[in-house]
Amino acid sequence: MVKALILVADGTEEMEFTITYDMLVRAGVECTSAFIPRGLSPYGSSDTSPPLAVCSRQVKILPDVTLDPLDAGPEKFDALIIPGGIGGAVTMAGSTEVQNLVRSYYNHPEKRIIGMICAGSKVAVTANLPGQPITSHPSIQSDFSVALDFDYKEQSVVVSDAVPDKATLVTSRGPGTVFPFAFMLIELLCGKAKCDEVVGPMIFPSGTGYPF
Amino acid sequence: MVKALILVADGTEEMEFTITYDMLVRAGVECTSAFIPRGLSPYGSSDTSPPLAVCSRQVKILPDVTLDPLDAGPEKFDALIIPGGIGGAVTMAGSTEVQNLVRSYYNHPEKRIIGMICAGSKVAVTANLPGQPITSHPSIQSDFSVALDFDYKEQSVVVSDAVPDKATLVTSRGPGTVFPFAFMLIELLCGKAKCDEVVGPMIFPSGTGYPF
Repeated sequence: MVKALILVADGTEEMEFTITYDMLVRAGVECTSAFIPRGLSPYGSSDTSPPLAVCSRQVKILPDVTLDPLDAGPEKFDALIIPGGIGGAVTMAGSTEVQNLVRSYYNHPEKRIIGMICAGSKVAVTANLPGQPITSHPSIQSDFSVALDFDYKEQSVVVSDAVPDKATLVTSRGPGTVFPFAFMLIELLCGKAKCDEVVGPMIFPSGTGYPF
Repeated sequence: MVKALILVADGTEEMEFTITYDMLVRAGVECTSAFIPRGLSPYGSSDTSPPLAVCSRQVKILPDVTLDPLDAGPEKFDALIIPGGIGGAVTMAGSTEVQNLVRSYYNHPEKRIIGMICAGSKVAVTANLPGQPITSHPSIQSDFSVALDFDYKEQSVVVSDAVPDKATLVTSRGPGTVFPFAFMLIELLCGKAKCDEVVGPMIFPSGTGYPF
């Protein structure tokens, strides 16, 4: 069974998290959400285990687990997904565990997928991924300084296989692009036919490009 | 401040719940999510208060409150929103409290808004709302039998002001139509200019009709 690990923190954009998780489950992917604590979280002393993630617009999500780097690596999951929401993305980008995790997926000998959306693309920089085609929320475009050699795109979804024998990097822009982002992840993880299966019951308006 | 009450139950479609809640918050609406328990819920004995809603694709959401009919009426909120997800919608449609609540919003002397999406439109039937233009997920279209005199539409969003001095009923079809559903709610609650404000940072792909 295809498996995906989806990170979540206080301040994560709840649409970006929820749409990605839900659609991957619709495609038959086994999803696990992992909470990334932050040092000074006011929620750190919560009684719940793992702690609740209080998202960017106050939707409160109970993650499946708290991140355990020993149990979250690319030998366990096919894809690692990093949603946006500036508060959550800053926590993830600043976490040594998350940086190491991203590098372990990137360098895994069996090709993995790393998905980053919106401010989540910050982690590509802090994890020191090599320069390659990328996108993000426009508000963090300046993170990708010329010196870093990323090829910044303004497309809704950017798929980068620029570096041979490394993970495929799928990046996207914001809440308005989560559907195409999730469909791209499904296509890469499960094949194009699965996208056709998932899109039907969702009843997209005509003119949006769905069904394909 | 404009206020909205959004229902949630075990089996609620998490995209429909989360996108609506998040976008209304982006528009400056004060949102409260209210849990609708079901009699035989395996989660009914949860230690959390209110109980966690285990949504249709296993995202776990902590509602803001458990429904208290005395504190949930149309004198407290401008809008009542009922998301889909067949499991959650069956719980809501079968709840006497929810049926009474919908009727109280419908009949309130100051015009209120009732939003129903996907299988959430079931509640229009169980609450005995009068026949009027409506839509829903296609899988529950047969709920709107000819005898009930609803005017069933296949549009992404249907706005019904068909009955004078009653609430405006806004209905929609599925996860693929939540964005237009939420924008319609924002337009009716906060005005068209607010939609233009909310749409910008969401970065919709070109060709989707957004920005407007």
